Amino acid sequence: MVLSKFWTLQQHFVGFPKESDFELKQEELPEPKDGEVLLEAVFLSVDPYMRPYSRTHMEEGDTMIGIQVSKVVRSRNPRYPEGSHVLVNCGWRTHFLSDGSDLKPILSDWPEELPLSLALGVIGMPGLTALYGLEEICEIKAEETLLVNAAAGAVGTVVGQIAKIKGCRVVGCAGTDEKVSYLRELGFDQAFNYKTIGSLEDTLREAAPQGYDCYFENVGGDFTSIALAQMRPFGRIALCGSISMYNNTAPQTGPCINSNMIQKQLRMEGFLVSRWKHKHQEGLERLLAWVKEGRIQCREHVTEGFENMPAAFRSMLNGGNIGKAVVKI
Amino acid sequence: MVLSKFWTLQQHFVGFPKESDFELKQEELPEPKDGEVLLEAVFLSVDPYMRPYSRTHMEEGDTMIGIQVSKVVRSRNPRYPEGSHVLVNCGWRTHFLSDGSDLKPILSDWPEELPLSLALGVIGMPGLTALYGLEEICEIKAEETLLVNAAAGAVGTVVGQIAKIKGCRVVGCAGTDEKVSYLRELGFDQAFNYKTIGSLEDTLREAAPQGYDCYFENVGGDFTSIALAQMRPFGRIALCGSISMYNNTAPQTGPCINSNMIQKQLRMEGFLVSRWKHKHQEGLERLLAWVKEGRIQCREHVTEGFENMPAAFRSMLNGGNIGKAVVKI
Repeated sequence: MVLSKFWTLQQHFVGFPKESDFELKQEELPEPKDGEVLLEAVFLSVDPYMRPYSRTHMEEGDTMIGIQVSKVVRSRNPRYPEGSHVLVNCGWRTHFLSDGSDLKPILSDWPEELPLSLALGVIGMPGLTALYGLEEICEIKAEETLLVNAAAGAVGTVVGQIAKIKGCRVVGCAGTDEKVSYLRELGFDQAFNYKTIGSLEDTLREAAPQGYDCYFENVGGDFTSIALAQMRPFGRIALCGSISMYNNTAPQTGPCINSNMIQKQLRMEGFLVSRWKHKHQEGLERLLAWVKEGRIQCREHVTEGFENMPAAFRSMLNGGNIGKAVVKI
Repeated sequence: MVLSKFWTLQQHFVGFPKESDFELKQEELPEPKDGEVLLEAVFLSVDPYMRPYSRTHMEEGDTMIGIQVSKVVRSRNPRYPEGSHVLVNCGWRTHFLSDGSDLKPILSDWPEELPLSLALGVIGMPGLTALYGLEEICEIKAEETLLVNAAAGAVGTVVGQIAKIKGCRVVGCAGTDEKVSYLRELGFDQAFNYKTIGSLEDTLREAAPQGYDCYFENVGGDFTSIALAQMRPFGRIALCGSISMYNNTAPQTGPCINSNMIQKQLRMEGFLVSRWKHKHQEGLERLLAWVKEGRIQCREHVTEGFENMPAAFRSMLNGGNIGKAVVKI
C-alpha cells in the first residue's frame, strides 16, 4: 500500500489560473494485482494545452491532466520490470497503478547520459509537435523563411532548430531579452523581443523583407493577423497554439484575415499532435538522433517538488520558462 | 476608324462605389493592322473582385478592369475571322484592338442555343472558381455537408449545384427571400435568408446538426468565425471572397479563429482561379457538359447598355443580382 498525492482542479479557471484553483489531495493505492505495476512519478510535464483543455476536457474535482515519466516501483507485469521507466498519461499524481495498457516505453536506444525528462520535451510530444507542424502542415523546404513565435518555449525552440537543420532561414520572437539571446545561441537568423519593439509589423518586415513562406503559430490574437500580412504568396501557416488567448475571459477579436488569405493564397491549418500517431515512433527516433548528434540543443526549465506543480504551471503560462517546463520529484 | 467608349476609375472608391467615381470616355481606334482584329463588346462582366482589385491593381484614371465576350468586327488575323466571338480581358470598353495574343476562343462545341454570356459565368471564371474551390481546396467527397454563403451569386449558385452533382448535402444562405426560393429550386437541401433569421449560430446548427465538412466562403467578416464553430473535425474552408468587407473603410474585426481551427484541426485556404490555368480547358468542358445535361441551371442578371456598367456593378455589389451579373450591349 502506498500513499499517492494528486492535484485536482478545485474550480474552473477564470482568467489566469490562481493557486486556489488547485487542490492537493491524497489517496491510498492498493498493492498491484497480477498484470499490474505501481508507478512513481520522476518528471511531470506542464504544458500550455492544459489551460484550454481544463475547460473542454475536465470537470471541477478532476485530477489535473498530463503526462509524466514514471519509474516502475513494484511490478507484477513482466513487460515492465521494477526499476524501468515508462511514459504514462495519468495526470498530476505521484503514484499510479496501471495494468500496462496505457504505458509507453522510453525509446530503447535512449542514452544513459540524457535526462529522461527529455521524453516530455524535445524527444516527446513537444518535439513531435514541432516536427509535424513543419513537415506535415507547412511542408517546409530548404531555403524557405520561417517565422515562429513563442520561439523560446518547449515547441518553439525545436521548431527553429529543425528548420535550421532543413536549411531554412528562421525568425523567432519571444518575450524577454534572455530568451532572445538564447534563440541566437540556437542559431536563429533573427530574433526579437516582441515586448520591447516599436512596431511588430515593421520588425517582421525588416527581419524578412522578402516575407515568410512558413509561419508556425503558437500565440494567436493580434500577432496572427499582423504576421499574415508579411507572408509570401502560397505561404503556409501551422496553427499549433494560442497561448496569448488561453486566459482571456472574453473572446479575443482582431482584424479579419480573409483578405490576406485570399490575395496571397495562403493555407492555414490547425493541428493536434495526435493526428500522426502512426509516425510517432519514427519521429521520436529522428529527434533522438538529432539530439545525439548535437544538432538540437535541449534546454529545460526544471521546478523541484510535486507540491510546486501549480506554481510551475502558472509560471509556464506566464512565460517564465526557457525551453521545456518540467517538474522533478 | 471606330469610336470606342470606355469607363475609367475617376477616383479610388471610398466605401461603397459612387456613380461619380467612374468616368465615361471615348477614343478613336485606328483600323487593324496586319495580324490585328477589331473587337466589339457583346457581353461585359461585372464581378465582386473588381472592387478590391481597384485598390490593388489600378491607378486613378485607369480603365475599369474586366473580361468580356466580344465579336470580331474586322479581322486581319486568320485565327479570328470576322463574325467569330472571343473572350478578352480588356476592361470596360465597347471596342478594342488586339493582336490576337490576348484572346481566348469560346469553347469549340458551344451549342448555338446557349447564350455566349455564360462564358462569363457558369462556363467561365465563376464556374471554374466554384469547381476549383470544391475540388482542389475543399477536396469535397460524396455524402459530405457543404456550407456556402452568397449562395445565389455567380459563384455560389454553381458551388451548390456542383456539390449536389457530387452527392453532397448543401446548405446555402443569401440575403433575400427570392434568392432563398431560387436556391431551393436549384436543389439546395437547406437555404435561409441571413437577414431575417434570429441567430446565425442557431440557424447553421439546425441546418446541419452534425456540422459542416466543407465551407465555401464568399462573404467574410463575422460570418466566418460563426461558421467555423459549426465545422466538423478536419473540415476544409475554401476562402474565395469577402464581399461583406470590400466596401469597408476601416479593417473589419471579429473573433480570433485560432481556437476553433486548432481544436477541430481545420484547414483554410485562400485561392484565386488563376492558380489552375492548366486545368481551365478541361474544367470548362465539364461545366459545359453539366449545363447541356441540365444538371446545372444558369440564371443571369442582365443589364442592358454600356452606359449602365457602373449601375450594374453597384447593384451587383449590393446583392441586386441572382446568378451572374452581366451587361449586354
